[in-house]
Order: sequence, then structure tokens, then C-alpha cells
Amino acid sequence: MGRGRRPSAEVRREVLAAAGRLLLAEGMSRFTMERVAAESGASKVTLYKMWPSKGALALEGYFATVETVLELPDTGDVEADLRTQLHAFVDLLSTTSAGPVMAGLIGQAQTDPELMTAYRASYSAPRRALAVGRMTTARDLGQLRADLDPETVVDQLWGACYHRLLVPDQPLDARFADALIDNLFRGIAAWKAEDASLSRRARER
Amino acid sequence: MGRGRRPSAEVRREVLAAAGRLLLAEGMSRFTMERVAAESGASKVTLYKMWPSKGALALEGYFATVETVLELPDTGDVEADLRTQLHAFVDLLSTTSAGPVMAGLIGQAQTDPELMTAYRASYSAPRRALAVGRMTTARDLGQLRADLDPETVVDQLWGACYHRLLVPDQPLDARFADALIDNLFRGIAAWKAEDASLSRRARER
Repeated sequence: MGRGRRPSAEVRREVLAAAGRLLLAEGMSRFTMERVAAESGASKVTLYKMWPSKGALALEGYFATVETVLELPDTGDVEADLRTQLHAFVDLLSTTSAGPVMAGLIGQAQTDPELMTAYRASYSAPRRALAVGRMTTARDLGQLRADLDPETVVDQLWGACYHRLLVPDQPLDARFADALIDNLFRGIAAWKAEDASLSRRARER
Repeated sequence: MGRGRRPSAEVRREVLAAAGRLLLAEGMSRFTMERVAAESGASKVTLYKMWPSKGALALEGYFATVETVLELPDTGDVEADLRTQLHAFVDLLSTTSAGPVMAGLIGQAQTDPELMTAYRASYSAPRRALAVGRMTTARDLGQLRADLDPETVVDQLWGACYHRLLVPDQPLDARFADALIDNLFRGIAAWKAEDASLSRRARER
């Protein structure tokens, strides 16, 4: 006796969960439509109706799975929120197989234009938009410089982490995440730090 | 009549120049030991004596060729020097085939541990060391925050550019290079900019 027919939103959710689990547990090289079908109870025909390729399914499954971990909190303090999220991101990349999986996907996408398109459409562009939206709000509230382009901050926080992931000359760890935030919020010039502490003292008086 | 026997330092220099030219003109997929031999006048045997693989030769040739373009000036003003160099770097990546070549090398290195080792040893680590050395000097001269880790700035300047090169969601151009420097030297928080301009006005009085 087979299971009853499930609504397609439910099937979709279960397939994505199975795909994300499989990808994080075993990496892209062992990721096949057959195995996702077996794990999720959906047929291969159903999978190919919903996703054009295993790359597209893997990406969407990964995104669905890590979405909660990578949530950007909104406490009203944009520096604290970015710091919290960046710690979760670095932790995901450095302690789960998300790190090798993402490095493999970005690497493969350099010679596979369809994978690049899928990666950008289903992962990097929406993640970028989330962060930019949050920083734009903070900028409009006067927490960030009025002339700041939030897109550039994406490359100096998450992009900097991808750089250490892809070319591991230096460790990708919590200390690095903190330094990235500090460099942007405190500035790296010596006189800024002095000004900031002078002005903080002035305000405290 | 063959040419007379050349000193090996000269051969080495000519082979590297030929390798760099070939790589930048036609990319990695058309790069072969045969073609470098033909272009440089050295024999394939000589090439294999000097470099273990075509990847190693390509990298060293690239490095030798772009070394002058990517020189980090030393005018005594670290912000101006980093800005000058970053403009040259972005220009190289976005207007020559250095961009696709580097993206292809980093991409391929994700599944080729020997290429990764060669890339790090002959390109990314020495480039990183140059920048870190310059920033360490500037920090010791009091131009950069005393508690700054210069390694992290490498990822927030050049790493941010590699991020846009590898995942081209946003343009890699001169405006981006300027924003990266501004974000780090001015900070991204609104109150820093105010403090800085207040303190600049105070100093000007």
C-alpha cells in the first residue's frame, strides 16, 4: 500500500529537506536525484518536474535547510545583528560540511554557467537582498552613514568569509568574524579610534 | 644555427614572461607546456626541469607578469597607497583576461589540492605578505589602529574583489574599489562620520 497522495507544497518541502540533509551530510559528489527520491519518498519523475537539474535542487535544498541558521535578527542594533549573523555563518561554514559544499559549488560554477545562474538566482542574490534590506533600513534610521552603499558591506563581511573559505591562507573563525565587524564599525585608521573614544568621553561628561 | 646557450636565470625570466603573456592572452584552457616552449625558445625538457606542472608554471608566469602592475606604492600615506593599488587590481581583473584566469584557477583549485598548494605558495601567500607587511609598518607608525589585525584587511579589500569576481552579482569597478577603502577608513556607522568631520573641523580651527 503506497501513501495517500500528498499536496504538492508538502512534497516540495519534504524533498527540499531531504536534499539539504543529504547535501550537508555527504557533499555534492554523492548527491543524486535517485538518493533524494529514496530519502523523500517522492518519485524521480516528480523531482524532475519540480527542478530542472540536480544542481538546482541541491541549491534550493541547501538554502531551505540553512535559512533558519542564517536568519538575520532585528533587535534594532544593526551592528549587534550583523555580528550575531556573521558568527552563525562562520560557524556553519567551518564546523559543518556547508563549507566544502559551498566551496565546491562556487568552484564548479566558474566553468558551469547554468550552475552559476542557479546559484545566483536561488542563493547568493536573495541572501544579498536580505542583508542589503536590513542595512538600508538601518541607514534610513541614521545608524549607518547616509552615503553608504550597503551592497559593498556584503562583500566585506560575507564575501571576506568566502575568500578565506576558497583560499584558506588564514583561519575562518569567530575571531575573524569579530574583526570584520570591528574594522567596519570602528574603522581601521588610528585617528578614528581616538576620535571615537574622545567623543564617547565627551558624551559621557 | 641554434642560439648560444643562455644563462638559466635568463631562460627562466624569458619562459615566465612567455607563460604570463600566453595565459593572459588566451586563458588557462589553451595554456600548454608545448606552446610556452615554442614562444620562449626553451625546450619542453628544460620547462619540466624547472616547473613540476603546467599549473605551477602558469601561476609563476602570471605572478611575474602582473607584479609591476600590482605593486603597492609607499608614499607614506597608507590609505592613498592601498587605494592606488586596489584601483590597479580591479582594473587588471575587470579589463584583461586576468579576471577569468584567476576565477578559473581558484575554481579549479577547489577540486585540485596540488593546484591549491601551488596557488597559495606562489601567488596568494606572497601577495598577502606584501600587503600585511605594508599595513604592519603603517600600524607601527600610528596610522592604523594599534589593535588592528592587518590579515583581516586583506580579506576586506582584495578578498571582497575576488568575491565579486567569483560570484558576479554586483559590478567590480573603480567605484567599488573606492567604497571598500572608504568603508574601512571612514567606518560605516553614522556617528563615526560625524565624529570624524567634527574632529577634522576642530583640528582645522
